[in-house]
Amino acid sequence: MKRIKKLICLGGDERRKYIADRLNESGIYTELTAQSEDLTGFDGIILPLPVSADRKNINGTDISLSEFCEKVDESKIIFAGKADENSKNILLSRGITFFDYYLRPEFASKNSIPTAQGVLQFVLNNTDTTLNNLNIVVIGYGNCGKALCRLFKSTGADVVSVSRKYISLADAESEGIKAVQVKDITKILPFADVVINTVPATILKRQVIDSIKDEALIADISSFPYGFDYSYAEKCGRKIHLLPSLPGKYFPRTAGSIIADTIKNIIEEEGL
Amino acid sequence: MKRIKKLICLGGDERRKYIADRLNESGIYTELTAQSEDLTGFDGIILPLPVSADRKNINGTDISLSEFCEKVDESKIIFAGKADENSKNILLSRGITFFDYYLRPEFASKNSIPTAQGVLQFVLNNTDTTLNNLNIVVIGYGNCGKALCRLFKSTGADVVSVSRKYISLADAESEGIKAVQVKDITKILPFADVVINTVPATILKRQVIDSIKDEALIADISSFPYGFDYSYAEKCGRKIHLLPSLPGKYFPRTAGSIIADTIKNIIEEEGL
Amino acid sequence: MKRIKKLICLGGDERRKYIADRLNESGIYTELTAQSEDLTGFDGIILPLPVSADRKNINGTDISLSEFCEKVDESKIIFAGKADENSKNILLSRGITFFDYYLRPEFASKNSIPTAQGVLQFVLNNTDTTLNNLNIVVIGYGNCGKALCRLFKSTGADVVSVSRKYISLADAESEGIKAVQVKDITKILPFADVVINTVPATILKRQVIDSIKDEALIADISSFPYGFDYSYAEKCGRKIHLLPSLPGKYFPRTAGSIIADTIKNIIEEEGL
Amino acid sequence: MKRIKKLICLGGDERRKYIADRLNESGIYTELTAQSEDLTGFDGIILPLPVSADRKNINGTDISLSEFCEKVDESKIIFAGKADENSKNILLSRGITFFDYYLRPEFASKNSIPTAQGVLQFVLNNTDTTLNNLNIVVIGYGNCGKALCRLFKSTGADVVSVSRKYISLADAESEGIKAVQVKDITKILPFADVVINTVPATILKRQVIDSIKDEALIADISSFPYGFDYSYAEKCGRKIHLLPSLPGKYFPRTAGSIIADTIKNIIEEEGL
Repeated sequence: MKRIKKLICLGGDERRKYIADRLNESGIYTELTAQSEDLTGFDGIILPLPVSADRKNINGTDISLSEFCEKVDESKIIFAGKADENSKNILLSRGITFFDYYLRPEFASKNSIPTAQGVLQFVLNNTDTTLNNLNIVVIGYGNCGKALCRLFKSTGADVVSVSRKYISLADAESEGIKAVQVKDITKILPFADVVINTVPATILKRQVIDSIKDEALIADISSFPYGFDYSYAEKCGRKIHLLPSLPGKYFPRTAGSIIADTIKNIIEEEGL
Repeated sequence: MKRIKKLICLGGDERRKYIADRLNESGIYTELTAQSEDLTGFDGIILPLPVSADRKNINGTDISLSEFCEKVDESKIIFAGKADENSKNILLSRGITFFDYYLRPEFASKNSIPTAQGVLQFVLNNTDTTLNNLNIVVIGYGNCGKALCRLFKSTGADVVSVSRKYISLADAESEGIKAVQVKDITKILPFADVVINTVPATILKRQVIDSIKDEALIADISSFPYGFDYSYAEKCGRKIHLLPSLPGKYFPRTAGSIIADTIKNIIEEEGL
Repeated sequence: MKRIKKLICLGGDERRKYIADRLNESGIYTELTAQSEDLTGFDGIILPLPVSADRKNINGTDISLSEFCEKVDESKIIFAGKADENSKNILLSRGITFFDYYLRPEFASKNSIPTAQGVLQFVLNNTDTTLNNLNIVVIGYGNCGKALCRLFKSTGADVVSVSRKYISLADAESEGIKAVQVKDITKILPFADVVINTVPATILKRQVIDSIKDEALIADISSFPYGFDYSYAEKCGRKIHLLPSLPGKYFPRTAGSIIADTIKNIIEEEGL
Repeated sequence: MKRIKKLICLGGDERRKYIADRLNESGIYTELTAQSEDLTGFDGIILPLPVSADRKNINGTDISLSEFCEKVDESKIIFAGKADENSKNILLSRGITFFDYYLRPEFASKNSIPTAQGVLQFVLNNTDTTLNNLNIVVIGYGNCGKALCRLFKSTGADVVSVSRKYISLADAESEGIKAVQVKDITKILPFADVVINTVPATILKRQVIDSIKDEALIADISSFPYGFDYSYAEKCGRKIHLLPSLPGKYFPRTAGSIIADTIKNIIEEEGL
């Protein structure tokens, strides 16, 4: 039997409205607030993604996480996105039941779609050439790498996937995508019009950067520590576009719905 | 044996650089100018698309078409794009050999790609929802209608093609695209998130406009007299985005190459 | 107001059952027969595709067309498929209202799908290699050529379209299909694993046949006079698979529905 | 430095020729044999997939695995496919270095393509309807489930993926494929024209079988213990097509190349 009947979204960005809309549509009454005073009377609280950008206040509010925890009683269930160690420790130390929706594999899978479409939008806005005439190299074949390869291939671009593992190379080929081992990356980069990194590991150093032609568009959608050697890139005047948080910025409605759907999965799976 | 060895592009927009690049790559020496003084020594002259926007001066220059014709001797071959009746008459009355590359069917076919991708860019820049969650209605199934249906379908959108003729409906279905007879358009428009007209005939009147939901994005890429009843739309405060000349604005490199390739086809076909 | 309420299918192959099923579903009462005695009481008669295979009897019956015409009164409306000159003359000389559904452009468009899928079935049954590892050359870019290129490309095959006209080459490229001018066909055929002709004109002569590698699979789905120089092929022991009438043989249900839908279009368009 | 320069394929089916061809092309000299006498002078031996079908003799030979092990000295490296417990124990007890190429994840990924295309061939050969008019339900979303969904969707079929885990449902949706939780399977099966199981667990029992319409085509490509309750199916006269070993049967060239490529990966990764 479901306990959770009323939820409240505390803080967050443009997505919060759509999180609430989607949950309300599913029959889970959900409100929005930016005030810690408003939390009573709710079975659970949705914290934003990321919970905190400054490692102090809850995103989109001027409430610190510690302050929040003091006001929350243990009966509440907390849903939070991408909780850093500090946030996690504060929540857990209070004995609060807490689920990180960002860590759910189905969230990562679904969120790769607005990410990839955000990159598509970025590329279209920054090129004088149609997609079918572009050679696009995508580095990494995780959720986002896959989504990017599929999306750009479907628009007619010539896509090459670069990855390290045999299974990633095989999976790419099984989808009809050209796959190149990362050790051969400098052989193909000179032909790339667009280079997109998805791997959060600084593997793209001097020699790799040098192999990319001057007029190519370079983007990095990975997270810290990012893929390129940025100090080298800066030194030699190469512009690399760091594109974080694409889903929330470009497609808040879809991104909010994905968060809501993931929370619904947690509720169902955990019998909350 | 080819006569045409040297061409010059007079006027035009950003595309002219790429027209020249592509022709130079093909071994046809091509220069750019905005001066009618520079035309001697060339076998042919490329006029822009459209030849004239103000029905007086050649686009991108302050040379009138009449003035131009006086300076051009009959041995020159003229390639022009979308010559209006007036321009055509002036050129023909001088006995100048003249080809309109805009009228070539392969030009229309190829140019539909940058057009469709321009619409894609417009939609991405004006929606908070990913393409795979959008219902898109495309009105008309000519070159641009086909290209739009294919492109949006390939990105995962739910696409419905609206057209009048049995053959257009059949062609759309043969490509796996849902097809609806134009007489049934008001049955499907209430479900559309994006409506794109490609038909240059004012068939989309009051009742059709009223059937589109308020939050839908409406675009018209047709040419005069356009598809919607704009006076009604304005009266009831419906925003319809008129999107002319997408290839040149959004993808000048590709659009220039397409013009160059079409000129090459004319040269080859006519044995110039 | 519709006059046609009851139809009867005379003769035909496996498709006739599905023609009747589809028309019955649409509210047009339809029966099957092989007897000319049964035709009274019906508003119209559906003759098979082709009307006559032996240029004498109606396909699937032992009734000659002349005999049939004698028994049919002028009030009946006849729907026939691919009526040869002789059949047409007999029908018209009797003053019978007659429509050839095979000549409708939407029929040709829709029928290209079962044709292409029949070729897919043939290729799968005759190769030891998966489609994604095959180089497939499709000659001609009419309805069937287009459908073949799309279908094989969608399965991952490497497809090259060969055609003559600039517009066909442009249309293929606009769909993301590699296009080669027919004059260059012998440059690409040596790399083909599968060659499929769709053009009913004997343009593929000695030199073309010689350029195809020995182990390639060759098919001709065109109609008389067919595409290859068969006497040369036979002389040098090249097997060319002539594949006529694929829709009726491989997908009678779909093929029958397409005939029924075309007849419905005629009824609607002509106000029958 | 590579030790392996010469390999020999012992036994096997039609694929063995293509395994050898591919390895020879890669510069690893490879021979075929069915005799245990021929094994000297080779650095490694390739055993077939599966090693043994009768749990006694090596597939395609009349040599028992024990007999084989006696003749093989420990310096040889053995590559085998799908070694059962018994075969594995025999090989390991002899101290022979042994790699099972069937267990490599990239093998499973690549082999899903000939599997899926084999099912495509089977469906085409057993239907009177074109793919674009078929509703196809694919049960399971592992390598084969994914490949089937993609392939059938690309041909225009209406595909529904059925799986259990949230991540599988999300992955399917991320590829644009309709996804249904297995608990809801009986809601969608009544609409299926084709049902394909890929899950090797008898989850498809009486109620599930009863929900499939009589004229639907049912296939099971899973391995033991298979997906359907076969005794119930038999009792009520439902034909379920068990389709094992599709790659080797339908596409031996591709299937052989995949084995060869996997062996090359093992050699490279293990520095053999």
